[in-house]
Amino acid sequence: MTARMTQADERRMANAIRALAMDAVQAANSGHPGMPMGMADVATVLFNRFITLDPAAPDWPNRDRFVLSAGHGSMLLYAIHHLLGYDDMGMDQIRAFRQMGSRTAGHPEYGHARGIEVTAGPLGQGIATALGMALSERMGNARFGDLIDHFTYVIAGDGCLMEGVSHEAIDMAGHLGLGHLIVLWDDNRITIDGDTDLSTSTDQKARFAAAGWHVLSADGHDTDRIAQAVQVARADPRPTLIACRTVIGYGAPNKQGGHDVHGAPLGDAEIAEARKALGWAHPPFEIPEDVYDAWHRIAARGAMARAAWDRQLETAPCRAEFAAHLAQDCAPLTRAMAEYKAQLAAEQPKLATRKASQMALEVVNAALPFTIGGSADLTGSNLTQTKGLQPVTPGDFAGRYIHYGIREFGMSAAMNGIALSGLFRPYGGTFLVFADYARPAIRLAALVRVPGVFVMTHDSIGLGEDGPTHQPVETLASLRAIPNLTVLRPCDAMETAEAWEIALAARETPVLLALSRQGLPALRKAAGENLSAGGAYVLRDTDGARDVTLIATGSEVEIAMSAADRLADEGIRAAVVSAPSFELFAQQDADYRQTVLGDAPRVGVEAAIRMGWDAVLRPEDGFVGMDGFGASAPAEALYAHFGITPQAVADTARGLL
Amino acid sequence: MTARMTQADERRMANAIRALAMDAVQAANSGHPGMPMGMADVATVLFNRFITLDPAAPDWPNRDRFVLSAGHGSMLLYAIHHLLGYDDMGMDQIRAFRQMGSRTAGHPEYGHARGIEVTAGPLGQGIATALGMALSERMGNARFGDLIDHFTYVIAGDGCLMEGVSHEAIDMAGHLGLGHLIVLWDDNRITIDGDTDLSTSTDQKARFAAAGWHVLSADGHDTDRIAQAVQVARADPRPTLIACRTVIGYGAPNKQGGHDVHGAPLGDAEIAEARKALGWAHPPFEIPEDVYDAWHRIAARGAMARAAWDRQLETAPCRAEFAAHLAQDCAPLTRAMAEYKAQLAAEQPKLATRKASQMALEVVNAALPFTIGGSADLTGSNLTQTKGLQPVTPGDFAGRYIHYGIREFGMSAAMNGIALSGLFRPYGGTFLVFADYARPAIRLAALVRVPGVFVMTHDSIGLGEDGPTHQPVETLASLRAIPNLTVLRPCDAMETAEAWEIALAARETPVLLALSRQGLPALRKAAGENLSAGGAYVLRDTDGARDVTLIATGSEVEIAMSAADRLADEGIRAAVVSAPSFELFAQQDADYRQTVLGDAPRVGVEAAIRMGWDAVLRPEDGFVGMDGFGASAPAEALYAHFGITPQAVADTARGLL
Repeated sequence: MTARMTQADERRMANAIRALAMDAVQAANSGHPGMPMGMADVATVLFNRFITLDPAAPDWPNRDRFVLSAGHGSMLLYAIHHLLGYDDMGMDQIRAFRQMGSRTAGHPEYGHARGIEVTAGPLGQGIATALGMALSERMGNARFGDLIDHFTYVIAGDGCLMEGVSHEAIDMAGHLGLGHLIVLWDDNRITIDGDTDLSTSTDQKARFAAAGWHVLSADGHDTDRIAQAVQVARADPRPTLIACRTVIGYGAPNKQGGHDVHGAPLGDAEIAEARKALGWAHPPFEIPEDVYDAWHRIAARGAMARAAWDRQLETAPCRAEFAAHLAQDCAPLTRAMAEYKAQLAAEQPKLATRKASQMALEVVNAALPFTIGGSADLTGSNLTQTKGLQPVTPGDFAGRYIHYGIREFGMSAAMNGIALSGLFRPYGGTFLVFADYARPAIRLAALVRVPGVFVMTHDSIGLGEDGPTHQPVETLASLRAIPNLTVLRPCDAMETAEAWEIALAARETPVLLALSRQGLPALRKAAGENLSAGGAYVLRDTDGARDVTLIATGSEVEIAMSAADRLADEGIRAAVVSAPSFELFAQQDADYRQTVLGDAPRVGVEAAIRMGWDAVLRPEDGFVGMDGFGASAPAEALYAHFGITPQAVADTARGLL
Repeated sequence: MTARMTQADERRMANAIRALAMDAVQAANSGHPGMPMGMADVATVLFNRFITLDPAAPDWPNRDRFVLSAGHGSMLLYAIHHLLGYDDMGMDQIRAFRQMGSRTAGHPEYGHARGIEVTAGPLGQGIATALGMALSERMGNARFGDLIDHFTYVIAGDGCLMEGVSHEAIDMAGHLGLGHLIVLWDDNRITIDGDTDLSTSTDQKARFAAAGWHVLSADGHDTDRIAQAVQVARADPRPTLIACRTVIGYGAPNKQGGHDVHGAPLGDAEIAEARKALGWAHPPFEIPEDVYDAWHRIAARGAMARAAWDRQLETAPCRAEFAAHLAQDCAPLTRAMAEYKAQLAAEQPKLATRKASQMALEVVNAALPFTIGGSADLTGSNLTQTKGLQPVTPGDFAGRYIHYGIREFGMSAAMNGIALSGLFRPYGGTFLVFADYARPAIRLAALVRVPGVFVMTHDSIGLGEDGPTHQPVETLASLRAIPNLTVLRPCDAMETAEAWEIALAARETPVLLALSRQGLPALRKAAGENLSAGGAYVLRDTDGARDVTLIATGSEVEIAMSAADRLADEGIRAAVVSAPSFELFAQQDADYRQTVLGDAPRVGVEAAIRMGWDAVLRPEDGFVGMDGFGASAPAEALYAHFGITPQAVADTARGLL
């Protein structure tokens, strides 16, 4: 199935990438020519001899995945897509590199053009996302056999390998033995500041070997050696690192091999010399037909493979189950969740919302076969495991629960990769405060619009004795700040069930659940409409006019309810608004918002800082919460110490009247 | 100088740690007995035979540093401090473990008790912080010879080694050859979820060796073997990992070696059996005199060493310079900075604030010998290097500039360690958006109250073509959310100089500078009082009454000024407030704040989301900024596209009138 050519042909195919990269960067007067020119030979061999994909069907589930972890080399990807014939990557796009509205953004942006597997640019994350893709592939293979059986290739640079998240990904991939993951390291010995030996002495090959990887080397400009290495890598049951020794900016005679070629246009004179050195006589943005033909043969090979796969799918016994995974249809959950919520309404359990989350997950995981759970080594605390879920282990990928290890960032990036695979819906747990560790991947999830669910427990000073390093205070605000992330902080078991319904229905928005360590009473007495979906709603109304509106989230709703009772004893009519999600509330129309918030003075209650509460509070309103870091003590003592009590809320309310 | 004892004596010394750990956790009904009991022998040997410190002079600059990276094992540290005789660590504190107001917080908190070198708990950061300490030690040694010549010891667990930041720290320490850094890995093969083989297969010893470390092993319960390993480690020029094979919860006969002993009290029955198994007949919270005596001998040895060092310092030729480093007196900067600001006032340069930062740093670094610069491989972009600063290189620590590599988190954690060393003031650069990568260390700096300066450039969509992964939008809000972090976003060269003055004067608050990529005109025409220190001030006043107040930060102040010109043409009197720091403005008195903000309608202008702007805006006020992620295009095109223009500001202002 490989479309073989002579080395000379592949050199011309690679030079087409080089020419497009240097010309596009020059036209934009901005960009990174060094990596595309240095890795052009490696990428050409990879696509020409190995990668199977169909530009006409970019979402084909069994395509090989190609992840450009070193996303600043985006012109490598765009050039390849153009040459392969992706119909949304015409020369107009190459000419518009890095310009407003073009598909050819400075870094590859998922969704901007077909076939871009992930948004890359924040270094190291490409590898970790690819780990998630490679894990998905094995999980898919365990369920659907040959229907899912492909490779995940990554091009990574020195920066990717220096970033800490690479360690988390490498460690995990080696542990799980993800043999279909192949990382091609652009070993050009150059970083932005200068030679890599300014800042690192690590023997990367030994490092990967220590993590259980298969390790190979190749001259990154010797196409047959590259091909030989990839061939050997594909046959090995371990994930493989291929150290590709390259010259950055290969072909630019005066600048190649130096750090000046990394991230700046070459200049017209150097480009002219490079054309001579490469034997590339064609004007900018012109590619000779024979080179197009060679690249189009790769696409044609992929189209045939895809057609054969389509026929295979038609007769596959698992066809319906496969379709269900792809569709991620949550309809099967509707009835089971309704029954569960009716049961909650009947039993009114007092539960930590992390426990309520586990109970909801029992229902979710039983109804939906495509959820994949996990935790960053806090399974018993996050309560992310349910009865039916067997762990994924090295060599057995039939399971649905991943022990991600103490790797919050790696977990979250891997979840992005799993979500992008299209077959599974991942959720993963850690403590809320460690959202900081995972934040770059949470941001990427929001930017890429992939729907993982971050299950963040121990969501306030209610965590207690572990103290301020473990107590989120500013964390909720910092997460609510991320565009296209829905943060939900449910107040009881019913809202937690609703939060899971919302999370699973979100197809283009990652969802973060902030859940309590401590037990919380049932405040929502009846099942029925998903009130959390409005973001905020009146939980306790007043008879007639309101004197004050108490607005709270999560574990503080109970406190607001108690405060309302106290105020009622004094004849003050206090409504209580539960506000599990500021983002969802902001999406409601003005009438609904006004009905919920009312005109009376308001008091916000949340065991966190006030930032972001201007979503529902005015300057003259009150707030009961935190204004600095927490402390180490039992939870009840902390709530008393920091003055987050029914008494304090009632006092604040009274002070406003 | 080592106080040798028999192994039997050391076993009793270690059992005292075990007893205090299990009894304190039991009394608190919360905490982690497993690690202190497992590592008690290692820690005892380390203190008894090697570590030199003086509990009566906990800030002695040449003490050995002991960092408990696995901070959940805090009772190990508290027990040791109690036994050594730290006078603020009486048995009352041990009894009050994890209770409100005690010094014995759930995780070690810097500043809560003497001798706690760093707040630990967020895993992996202890190693990276210790790297900074060990680097400081070598830098101190290069400057002051024997006056600074000590070791930095770290106890790290599996979690620390799984976290990505450990890779960044290990890579860097190996590269720099920090031979006085010794990491004792608690190799107990247990994590919270279960055995380590649930989630990792990495050969840690091979991994460290790949990064250039010296690697040793020892039975963590064989005191002579431990001592032998430490002896060999100290003699080696490379940093050393000692893999200490331990039994978690050693001494608890029914629970040791399992994950249940990690983070929960043992229970009274198991504690009773442990007492028998250990041959420890003493009641809870009682330590026999001979054991106290043995531990006190360590302290006495340290006190002698410290006294000798004091005498050495008295006659040291570098005494004044040493004192200047310790005092970090910024007075020498006053005159040079005044001259520089006068020059700015005279020349009115148009500069990117990152360039202005470099110019200010030229003045700072020339005047203050204790600043240590660096960048996470963006030196030419962050402009953190100045003329006089030579790089720190392997084997030569006399320099003042650190090539941190592509390791934003590792850099920031190392900066914390450098700041904690007491001899140096670190600053380090990256792009503002990558504050997300560094965030856990920035949070820790704020919590620990150490004064590093984070130099974050390319602080908005003004970054341009690199696109949304590289453009901060929510980043400023997320940073302003962190308690005890001062964020400064200067609008021109003068404000940038003021920002550096503020940053250097802050002794217990980390400062983050958000700096522009793009050129900005001089808006502050006169030198003089540091107006930025008030957080916000009237940059352009109106003649008489104000019709509207435009409030802006950084690169958007120019836009607000242009808008005010337009409005003036229409007869609308617009004041412009420059607000480089919301945190500093919040610290001003109400009168000042009112004078600056006025009563007129307000328009906020910042190329970022509105969250946090309720610090200065009311619901009825206007805001011109971002409400989602950015895009890839030249900066001017992006400002136009997202409507952050003088026209838009003027329109918004007019709409409010």
